[in-house]
Parts: sequence; structure tokens; C-alpha cells
Amino acid sequence: MTPDSVIIDTLFGSGLSRPITGIFREIIKRINESGCTVISVDIPSGLFGEDNEGNDINAIIKADFTLSFHFQKLSFMFPENEKFTGKVHLLPIGLHNSIIESTETPYRLIDSDMVKPLLKTRNKFDHKGTFGHGLMVGGSYGRMGAMVLGARAALRTGIGLVTCHIPSGGNLIMQCAVPEAMAIHDRSEKNISEIADPRSFSAAGIGPGMGKESETQTALQKFLVNCRIPVVIDADALNILSENKKWFSDIPPMSILTPHPKEFERLAGKKANGFDRLRNQVEFSLENKCIVVLKGAHTSISEPGGKVFFNSTGNNGMATAGSGDTLTGILMSLLAQGYEPLNASIAGVFIHGLAGDIAAGRLSCESMIASDIIDSIGEAFNRIREG
Amino acid sequence: MTPDSVIIDTLFGSGLSRPITGIFREIIKRINESGCTVISVDIPSGLFGEDNEGNDINAIIKADFTLSFHFQKLSFMFPENEKFTGKVHLLPIGLHNSIIESTETPYRLIDSDMVKPLLKTRNKFDHKGTFGHGLMVGGSYGRMGAMVLGARAALRTGIGLVTCHIPSGGNLIMQCAVPEAMAIHDRSEKNISEIADPRSFSAAGIGPGMGKESETQTALQKFLVNCRIPVVIDADALNILSENKKWFSDIPPMSILTPHPKEFERLAGKKANGFDRLRNQVEFSLENKCIVVLKGAHTSISEPGGKVFFNSTGNNGMATAGSGDTLTGILMSLLAQGYEPLNASIAGVFIHGLAGDIAAGRLSCESMIASDIIDSIGEAFNRIREG
Amino acid sequence: MTPDSVIIDTLFGSGLSRPITGIFREIIKRINESGCTVISVDIPSGLFGEDNEGNDINAIIKADFTLSFHFQKLSFMFPENEKFTGKVHLLPIGLHNSIIESTETPYRLIDSDMVKPLLKTRNKFDHKGTFGHGLMVGGSYGRMGAMVLGARAALRTGIGLVTCHIPSGGNLIMQCAVPEAMAIHDRSEKNISEIADPRSFSAAGIGPGMGKESETQTALQKFLVNCRIPVVIDADALNILSENKKWFSDIPPMSILTPHPKEFERLAGKKANGFDRLRNQVEFSLENKCIVVLKGAHTSISEPGGKVFFNSTGNNGMATAGSGDTLTGILMSLLAQGYEPLNASIAGVFIHGLAGDIAAGRLSCESMIASDIIDSIGEAFNRIREG
Amino acid sequence: MTPDSVIIDTLFGSGLSRPITGIFREIIKRINESGCTVISVDIPSGLFGEDNEGNDINAIIKADFTLSFHFQKLSFMFPENEKFTGKVHLLPIGLHNSIIESTETPYRLIDSDMVKPLLKTRNKFDHKGTFGHGLMVGGSYGRMGAMVLGARAALRTGIGLVTCHIPSGGNLIMQCAVPEAMAIHDRSEKNISEIADPRSFSAAGIGPGMGKESETQTALQKFLVNCRIPVVIDADALNILSENKKWFSDIPPMSILTPHPKEFERLAGKKANGFDRLRNQVEFSLENKCIVVLKGAHTSISEPGGKVFFNSTGNNGMATAGSGDTLTGILMSLLAQGYEPLNASIAGVFIHGLAGDIAAGRLSCESMIASDIIDSIGEAFNRIREG
Repeated sequence: MTPDSVIIDTLFGSGLSRPITGIFREIIKRINESGCTVISVDIPSGLFGEDNEGNDINAIIKADFTLSFHFQKLSFMFPENEKFTGKVHLLPIGLHNSIIESTETPYRLIDSDMVKPLLKTRNKFDHKGTFGHGLMVGGSYGRMGAMVLGARAALRTGIGLVTCHIPSGGNLIMQCAVPEAMAIHDRSEKNISEIADPRSFSAAGIGPGMGKESETQTALQKFLVNCRIPVVIDADALNILSENKKWFSDIPPMSILTPHPKEFERLAGKKANGFDRLRNQVEFSLENKCIVVLKGAHTSISEPGGKVFFNSTGNNGMATAGSGDTLTGILMSLLAQGYEPLNASIAGVFIHGLAGDIAAGRLSCESMIASDIIDSIGEAFNRIREG
Repeated sequence: MTPDSVIIDTLFGSGLSRPITGIFREIIKRINESGCTVISVDIPSGLFGEDNEGNDINAIIKADFTLSFHFQKLSFMFPENEKFTGKVHLLPIGLHNSIIESTETPYRLIDSDMVKPLLKTRNKFDHKGTFGHGLMVGGSYGRMGAMVLGARAALRTGIGLVTCHIPSGGNLIMQCAVPEAMAIHDRSEKNISEIADPRSFSAAGIGPGMGKESETQTALQKFLVNCRIPVVIDADALNILSENKKWFSDIPPMSILTPHPKEFERLAGKKANGFDRLRNQVEFSLENKCIVVLKGAHTSISEPGGKVFFNSTGNNGMATAGSGDTLTGILMSLLAQGYEPLNASIAGVFIHGLAGDIAAGRLSCESMIASDIIDSIGEAFNRIREG
Repeated sequence: MTPDSVIIDTLFGSGLSRPITGIFREIIKRINESGCTVISVDIPSGLFGEDNEGNDINAIIKADFTLSFHFQKLSFMFPENEKFTGKVHLLPIGLHNSIIESTETPYRLIDSDMVKPLLKTRNKFDHKGTFGHGLMVGGSYGRMGAMVLGARAALRTGIGLVTCHIPSGGNLIMQCAVPEAMAIHDRSEKNISEIADPRSFSAAGIGPGMGKESETQTALQKFLVNCRIPVVIDADALNILSENKKWFSDIPPMSILTPHPKEFERLAGKKANGFDRLRNQVEFSLENKCIVVLKGAHTSISEPGGKVFFNSTGNNGMATAGSGDTLTGILMSLLAQGYEPLNASIAGVFIHGLAGDIAAGRLSCESMIASDIIDSIGEAFNRIREG
Repeated sequence: MTPDSVIIDTLFGSGLSRPITGIFREIIKRINESGCTVISVDIPSGLFGEDNEGNDINAIIKADFTLSFHFQKLSFMFPENEKFTGKVHLLPIGLHNSIIESTETPYRLIDSDMVKPLLKTRNKFDHKGTFGHGLMVGGSYGRMGAMVLGARAALRTGIGLVTCHIPSGGNLIMQCAVPEAMAIHDRSEKNISEIADPRSFSAAGIGPGMGKESETQTALQKFLVNCRIPVVIDADALNILSENKKWFSDIPPMSILTPHPKEFERLAGKKANGFDRLRNQVEFSLENKCIVVLKGAHTSISEPGGKVFFNSTGNNGMATAGSGDTLTGILMSLLAQGYEPLNASIAGVFIHGLAGDIAAGRLSCESMIASDIIDSIGEAFNRIREG
């Protein structure tokens, strides 16, 4: 084996739930140290398909590329396994959709075929009322931009009207940057201290740029207790909940929570690996009767029934300031238009990622910013409808 | 009849003013329950061409598509009949324009051929004075964006100058967002309380984002009483009039009122169906000597002489925040340039809808926002001129 | 003569300095009343080439089109003669440039061939200092947009740095809208009351949106007296001078004044027709040792030596709010880069008009706004260089 | 020799370190006075390849064009020699890269081949944390735009998050213009007086628009003393250091300083010519253990080890307000993403220049502004990756 060689790894230990040992372990070690290009077929030898908690990480092939068939393996969804899989390519093998549908698994990959039928038809005589009126709550002194991005994203996803509840000091920023949105003002200049009664709105989004001041914490709890409309809970609203876990019971049923991994840790505890975190996510959804959208390279959506949906769009250029705020706006927009929370989550996450892919294609992953995601939502809708 | 069949419905009860009964009613019921694709020719059987007040809604074919000849039927203009017509397609049948012109009907569909000759020629030596100076009045704390959109739309429709009368607290928003517009400031920071004498202006638009504070109400009445220039009355200005119906007599003759259906209800009362609402609109125009632009999928324009013009451009993507404010700006712009109020209404509504169609084509109906309508006005002018 | 005929008018009274009388006058009357399409060759019969003061306006052909040879006649430059010439087309007749150059006339039409060699070459090692630092002075409460447009136009015309002296209340507007410009602040919040010493700047522009408050008047005079750098005087600065004609002597030599016709009337008095106004403009330049850029369809540039340059670019879409402010920015930018005032005027007016033509071609004359002129300056430079 | 002739100058005195004298000097004088087009091959006769301090400037050919082989000569990098070289064209002569690499010289020209391998790979599971959180410090009353440009440039170069420490009065400007950036506020409304502890950030940039108030000076020194993260020092931060040279020792090791020539003079003293200034730059880097990015037509990057890198991208259109602020943003962005300071400097300067070239190609050198550089960063990344 010279470093110039290519090694094809064809599953000499995969699919087991026990780590590879003995001579095979020795071979894996040699291959990993060889400097050769390693291509794993289906799954790197030694890597389990789902839970790798009990696995021996020194007994797993570190591939440069993995060629897998039709489906992603669950373990490919977790960041810690990228060092084993390298770049993953899926090969279609002609599976009929009906077979796929009937395969029993709680895990699904979201693709265009799944999202297209979820998109609501807009009728000729529909009016602003049909498309709903969303209430976005958040912002604080020095962090108003999150609200700007959230409101713009909501408007570009088909909502009828958006009103932003913001600290009064943010009025000029909001109105200059998003003339299409209306603003209502907190009595506090710099923070959220008391939130408008959401009864007259169709959906709400809360958290972007909101901060965690004690008056904001109180206001959030009251808001959740009174909230009878579908709601997206994001960012600092989640962080406040993390610091007041007894308020979990006040989260309205079927709310959508959109933590990134750090925020989810604060909410539900730290786990050693991706599989455990996923299990934790599913349990959290079940216990709190909510949808959790755990953001990442493969954003995972869990719901109280135990199903999990992994997103297939998006790229690392979306790891940029304000990217999460645009997702909150997209989700609130879909809820206001009457999408069921789970459908809103599936469609919203896919649209967000696809818009990000369109932006990155034009501007590079480095150069795209959150505003570019928003500007690409229209093309994302077009591609899904035409696709 | 299996659900896969296509049924062609060729008018076995249409054109009558009495509901279908007996065996034909039974057949219609069967067809509607069949699950087949139904295509009506000319008009769905059982549907009257104009007023369906006394009709039996269980005795009307529910078509998926209606193929009609050359003209839209009046009843197709009303939202409640979409469930009978499905998607309407017009088939040209070679009618000569002179025949169309001579057909006696108070109803006309606005198309490019009607609008093109209405557009004023701009001459080489024309200057800012030729194109007029418009006064836009409105805005309030948290709702200044409406004025931003209105002023931008006016500027992009050919006016010479725009001045905005706004609450003083809106100064920064307005000037940042629309450097081409000038601002004059109300003594009130958050509301309109006293409106500049409009004598030195060529036209005015009043209402966008204005609110209904009591000082604003008084200011509006004074403004209307003193107004000797053509004026567009929109949004909260209409809502104030609804709450002060005795002020109807203060509306300057040939003013353009631009209510959406809810606003029109408040002005003129609720009606059970589209035809009655249309009759009501015509009467309102007659009684108050004004033009009513009733916004909707087929915006209807009524004038004191009893004629009604239905718009043929536009789409449901325009059911988005600020869309109405852009129409107010467009209409004020045309009035300031010396268009007769009826011509301004016909041309303005058509341009607004066409700009919306251009925006939706590029961005999807979901993703387009009011600013995109404004940015497409130029291409709308080009298409009408070239069309 | 039926109204369908075309009449070719071949100069049966032109070139004279006395009005046409008798039978010829009668024929002209008949032609003008015929309803026929009239095409004049060279110049409509009866119209004088320059001064039509003493002419009999009932003895001049009213053409629909005039086909003229190589040159515009002077009288074609004046708005009041458009009704005689109709649309003017120039036919090239192969005149050699050297003949044109040697023809003795104080009047020249500015075209791309004249402007191209005036444009300064930018060298590889040139730096911000080479391109100058301009001071723009103006703005007032509610009219800050003029400064935004002026500063943007200056930056897009090649200047190194721009500083804006503005009322302190305009700081946020200016800095939000033009991050590339620096601001210095008047002690007054709403007006200009005391202007920074311009000694450290390369050129200045004064007037856009400035108002005429008495403190502003005093400040302007002091500024002019101290000004040792090339300066563009526009808008309200001109209006203040009109109200204080004794300050004319304080205008720094070779300043560029950019009045529109109304402003020029206030400065130099009203004249009955275009030719008299032109003579007045030439005299004004001579007496006040300044360049006058009289804005209009054919902007005329006069200089103390008696020469006049007419612009050949531009369109009526430029008769829009802020169009003049962008010209002020362009001229100041060229002065700051070391262009001689006359060259700056010729090149600046041509670039401004060409940018306007580019904007109108894309957006229609109705829909283009001043910001679009600014955004088209780059393409204007490219076209001149390539042309 | 008639002025129409072309003279080919083939090195009859070049490469020497002593000035040309006698008959050759006489010939050079004749050639320079001839009015002919002069083309020098390799280098104009009489010009030394590096240091021309002791040279006789009357004994050097003044070429219109210089055709040189594969490499730029060092002396071509200096503005004062442009009058000898005219426009320089490089002719490839098939040198193998390994020969180039092994040539011992402290001087390198930065090109796409050098930058491409420096660009970090972004991995699928990378998140905002991976791409760092930058702290940009600066701004003052009337000069906030520099911060707007710096923050935007940082975001468009791949950073995860940007926080701007600004005078509190700049809050609205910053948040309106860059919703993706967060702001923290100085206790002073108009200046920087106390800087946030940078410990929680990945990199910092300080200086744009900051002013030199005495409280700002104190704040800067404290900041430098406490700074343990990579930092870019620019603009007024450099000017403050120039006035407090004893603080040089507080500059954190391997900081990037980005002076333009005037700023560098204030820091390190004035030199008579480009070569001396370069030597001075190298010594400054060595003494202060920092990287100096001396901005100009061929920006030179010196580092403590004595190597110098000259940039090959960029154009005189970048001699425009705010161009330097965008470079600061780009460099801070790369540092925050974990680039070594020298690599950040090489890649950042090349990207900045290439983005400027893309902007100038679209808009002309005159019309491009700093915002256009920022908007072209994405295409610059794409070109380098594809190149």
C-alpha cells in the first residue's frame, strides 16, 4: 500500500452493533495510517448505522468518500461521524417510491418531492386576510437587526401582514429597513417588557435579538401562557426557557422551537454524541408536545409522535449572522398562512436551505449573508414548484 | 361516470334568470358529486351571467375549468362564483373591435388596448412643473412604511415632485428611505393633526398608515373641505369617513376612493354577494360624485355616470402588506400629471396589476412584496407602450 | 390637400430676418390648417434660425417633423419653437470635422466626440488625494434627500472623498444613506447657519435642499467671500443670491451656477423668449465672470468669453425630483479632480444626460428617478470611452 | 528620428548600479526629447532594478511601454518610476514554478496561484462558531460610515458573527445599514472612550472612522495592552500611535497594520523614494514584530522575517472613500476564521484588489465606490477557486 493507492472498503464489519476487533481492527488501523485515498461503499467498515455510543472509534475506517445507496444512514447525520464518512455521495438504485414509503422507520430525509405537495395553492380571489397576519416579537438595544431579517423573511414567504413588537428605541431602524412591516412599541426603550395580546394575529414568532433581561423573562412567560395561536420560539426566548425550566409546561402545544445545538443543550442537557442528542430531541418533543427544529448541517425536525425529518438542503455559508432569524421569519409566515406546524417546519426548513444554496451558488459560501437567503426565497419556491 | 372521466358541460340551463329545477337539477347534483373533471363551455350550467342573488346554489355546475368566449361574464368577477367557474379561460372568437365598442353595457374589462391610448405623451421640453407636484398625507407612529411605499410609487409613475406631510417623528424614516421626496412635518410627533394647505400642489393622496386619532379625524375633514385639487382617498382616511358619514358631502367631486372590500363595507354597508356589492358601489359613486376603486382580484372602478371598469391584471401575490399604498401613490402621480380622474383610475389600476404580474413572474406570488411592485412599474409602462 | 396628404416644406421663406407676408403667408396659413402631415426640410418656412423676437408667429410653418442637415439651428434649442419644428431629425451630410471646427460661431452642440478627449486619464499610482476632496453644503429639515443624492452622484463620478456640511439633525439620514461620505454638522439642527472653512477642500458644491433662512443667507455670503476653491452654486444658494443681488460680486470667478429656467429668471430677469433668455445668459456670465449652466431639454452652458455649449443628451424622464442635485454632485466631483470649470461643465452635463438616457432606456421616462441617473453614471463613462 | 517613429530600447545600460554617463547619457536625453513612442525591453535603460536613490534621473529612458519577462522588477513597484516604465506588460517565458520558488529573493508578487491554496476549506458541519466572532471598533460623530463598510466587508468574507463597538449615537446608522451585525455602545455618544474587553472574540479590527480624541487615545492603548486576539490596526488607530510612539511596544505581536503612505510616514518617517520607504517598512515590521500592509497601487506586505509580498490586483478606482475600511473588514474576517496573520494579509489584499477589479470592470474606475468592492467579494472568491 503506497500513499498513491486507492482503497475500496466494502463493508467487512458494518451493520453490526458490536465494535470490530482482532485482525480486522488491525487492518483498519493500517488503512487509516496508510495515507491512501479510501472509498467506503455503503458505510465505512466499523461504523454503525445509527448509534455509535458503544463503538470503538479506533476500529472504524476513515474514508475520504462514502458511496451509499439511495438513503443516507442515520449516523451520517451526526457531525462527529464526518471524519469516518468523508464526503458522502448517494447512488440511486431504482427503489420505487411505494417501497420507500412503506419502509418502517421514524426517520425521513426531506426532499423536493416531499415538500412540493405540502405547498398550499393560492387562489385567484385570496386576499391579505387569507394569508394571515403575523406578530414577530424581539429585538433589543444593539440587536434590532435580527427583527429586520425575521420580518423581511416572513414577508418574502407569502404572509399577508407582519407587525413587529419591538423596544420603542428600535422604531426608526425597523421602519427604515422594512417599510412593509408595521411596528408596535414596548414601553421600554431598549428591551421587551410587556408583549401585545396576540389574539388578533394568526401566528407569532418570538425571540430574535430579544435578550434575557428579567422584565423580558416575565413578559415571555405571560405571552406563552396567553398564546392561543401557533408560535415559533427562537433564540433568546429559548435561552430564557432554559433558565426557567418550570415554564416548559407553558409552551403552547405544537409550538415550533428552533434551537441551534448550543441552545438545545441548554434546554435539554448536553449529550456525548449525535445519536444521543437525537434521542434527547425526540424525547423533548414528546414530553413538551412541541416540534423541535434542531439547526445544523442536516437540520432535524422532531415531533411529539416520534417521527424525525432530516433536511437535505443548505450549506456552510448559512453559518452566518442572522441565518437563524430568517428561518424564524419563514416558519412564522407559513404558520400564519395556515400550514400545520409540522408541515410548516418541513417546508420552511427545506425552503430556507434551498434559498441558502441558491445564494451560495451565486456569491460563494464565504460571501453570502443572511439577506441573500431572504432574497433567494422566491427562486426557491419556483424551483420546488418546477422541480 | 368514473372519477377519471371528463365531463363537458354545454349550457343546459344557462342564461336564464330562474334557477334550474327538476331532472336537470338532479343531473347537476350528480355531476358535482362525481369526482370527474368538469369543463363548462361559456358559463357553468345554472349560473346566471350577472346577479345570482335568487339562484339555487345547489343547482349550479361546479366546473374545474370554464372556457368562455371573448368576454368575461359579470358573475365571473365575484369571488363567491369561483367555486362554480373554476379557472376561467377566454377564447377569442374574432369579434371586431367596433362591434365590441358598440355593445351597450355599463361594464368593460380594462386591457392593454384600452390603457395604451390613455397614456400621456411626454414632450421634449417638458419640465418638472409639467409633471406636477403631489402631496401625500399619512403615516403614524409605527406605520410610516406606508408613506415610504406611496411616495416611491408616485415617483416611479412619472410625477415631477413629491412632498410628504408626515408626523414629525417620521422624518428620519422618510428621508432615509426616499431621498427624492421632500417632507413637511406635522406639529404632532406621532400623528397627523393639521394638514398643510394643498393649494400649491397639483394633486394629493391621503390615508396610508394615517391612523384614526380624533385629531387626525378633524384634520381630515378640514383638508377635504379646503381641497380644490384632485385627490386620492385611501385606507384610514376611508375608515374615518366611515365613522363620520355626514362628511361624505365634503368629499371633493371626482375624488378617487380606493377601499378594499372590508373598507368598502364600512363605508357603504355589507352586502350578501358580489353583484349586490357592485350595485352598491355604483350607487355610492353616483350619490357621492366620486370614483370608487374597489380593490380585489378583479378590481372594479365605478364612476358617477354608472359605468364600471374591471381590471384584468394582477395576482394573489399582491395580497401583501403595502400593496394598496403603492396603488395610492400611482394614482396620485397620474392625477398630478393632469390625467382625468377616471383615466387615472383605469390606467393606474392596470399598471399596478401589470407591475405585480411582472414581479410575481420573477419572484413567485409568495415571495413578491410591495417594493417589488414599485420596482416593476417601469417595465409595466414599457410593455403597455410596446404591446 | 386632404388631411391624409404629406406636405414637404422646402424653405420658401427661411433664412430671412423679416417675417413672411402676402401670398406666402396665406399659403402657410392654409398648410397649418390643412390637417396634413408636414415635413420641413432644413427649417420650417418662416422660422428664423436664431432670434424670432420680431417674427410673425402666424407666418411660420408648423411642421410635424423637421429634417435638418448636420447641425441643429439655434432656434431649435428654444422650447417655444417646438410647435414649429415638431420632432427634429439631423441628417449627416459628410461635413469634415475641420470645416466644422473652423466655422465661426459662438454656439456648439456637445457630443461624445467633444467630451471624450476632455475626460482625464487616471494613472496606476493615483490615490485618493489625486482625485480630490469635495465639500457639499446644504440640506434642511425635511429636505435632506438632496444632499444624499448630491453626495452619491459625486462619489460615482470619480472623486476621492466627499464631506457634507449639513444641519446636525440630518446626521442619521446622511450616514445611513451614504456610508462612503463623511459629515460635518452645523450648530443648527434644522438649517445651515455657519459653513466650515473650505480651505482644506479641493472643490465645493452649495445649495441642494438648503432653504433660505436668514441665517443661511448670511452663511452663504461669508462662504462665497472666503471661497478660494472651485465651486458649484445651485438651487437655494441661487435663490438667496437672487434676493441679494449686491452679493453677485462675491461670487468667486469661474464658479459654476446651475439654475433651472425659473431660478435663472429670479437671478437675471424674465425674458419673452428663448433667444432673449440666451442673450441674457451670455451677458450674465460675462458680467459675473462665471459659468452658467441653464438646465433644460438642451441645457445651455455659457462662459465669460461669450461661447455657448448646448447639450445633446438627456430626456424628459430627468424632469424628476432630485435630478438637479445629482448634476451638482457630478460637477463638484469633476472640479475636485482638477477639471477646468468649463470642461467640468461640458463633460458633467453630457454625462448627466447620458446617464439619464441609459436609465430611461431601462425603466421608461415615467419610471426613472434621480437615483437611477446616479446608478447609470458608470455606464455613461464606459459608453463615452468606447464611443 | 521623427515623432512618428517607434524606438525599441534594449537595455544598453541596465542592470548596473551606477548611473549611465557620457555618450549613452546623451543618447538617452535625445530619445526622451524625440517625441517618439519608446518601448523598453525588460527595463528602461538607465533604471536600476531595485534602489534608484543614487541614480541620475536624467540618464534614464522614459518609455511609453515596458515589456518585461515573467517578473516585475522591484523598482516597478514604486510610483516615482512610472514615468520611466510607462505601462508595464509582462511576457511569460515558460519558467517552471519550481525555479521561481527556489529563486532566493525576499520579494514575491501575489497572484491567484499563491492565494488559492491559502483559502481554507469550509466543511459541511462547520457552524458559526467555526467561522469566528469579530469585534470591529471605531466610528465617531459624522464618520460612522467607515464602520458600516467595515462590518459589511467582514460579513461578506466569511466570518460567523460581527459585533461593532461604536459611539452610542451611531446605533441607528449601524443597525439600519447592517442588520446582520450586532452593536455594543460606548458610554460616549460621539466617540470611542472605553472599549469592550475583547476576550470573547476571535479577532478584532480597530480604527475606521474613530477620530483621535484624547479619551479615544487612552482607550486605544488600554485595548492594545489587553488584546490577546489577532487584530487589524487601521486609520485613526494608526494616527494615534504615530502621536504616541512609545505605545508601539503595546502593539500585540503579529498584529496587521494597514497604513496608506501618508499614515505610514507619520508612523515611521518620510523617505525620499519608494525603495527607501520599502526598506523602512521592512524595518518597522521587524522592530515592532508586526505585519505592515502598506496600501498603494502595488500594496506591499512586510512581515517580521523580512519577506515582502507585492499585490498584483487592484486599480485606481479603488482610490475612493471607504476603500481602506473594506480592507480592514476583510482582514478581520479572515483572522476570525483562523487564518494566520500573514496568510490573512496575502489573501485579504489580493481578494480586495480582485473585487475592486471586478467592480471597475462593470462600473468604470470613476464610478465604482467602496460598496461595490464589498458586493464583488463573492465573485472574487469564485474566480480564485475556479482560476
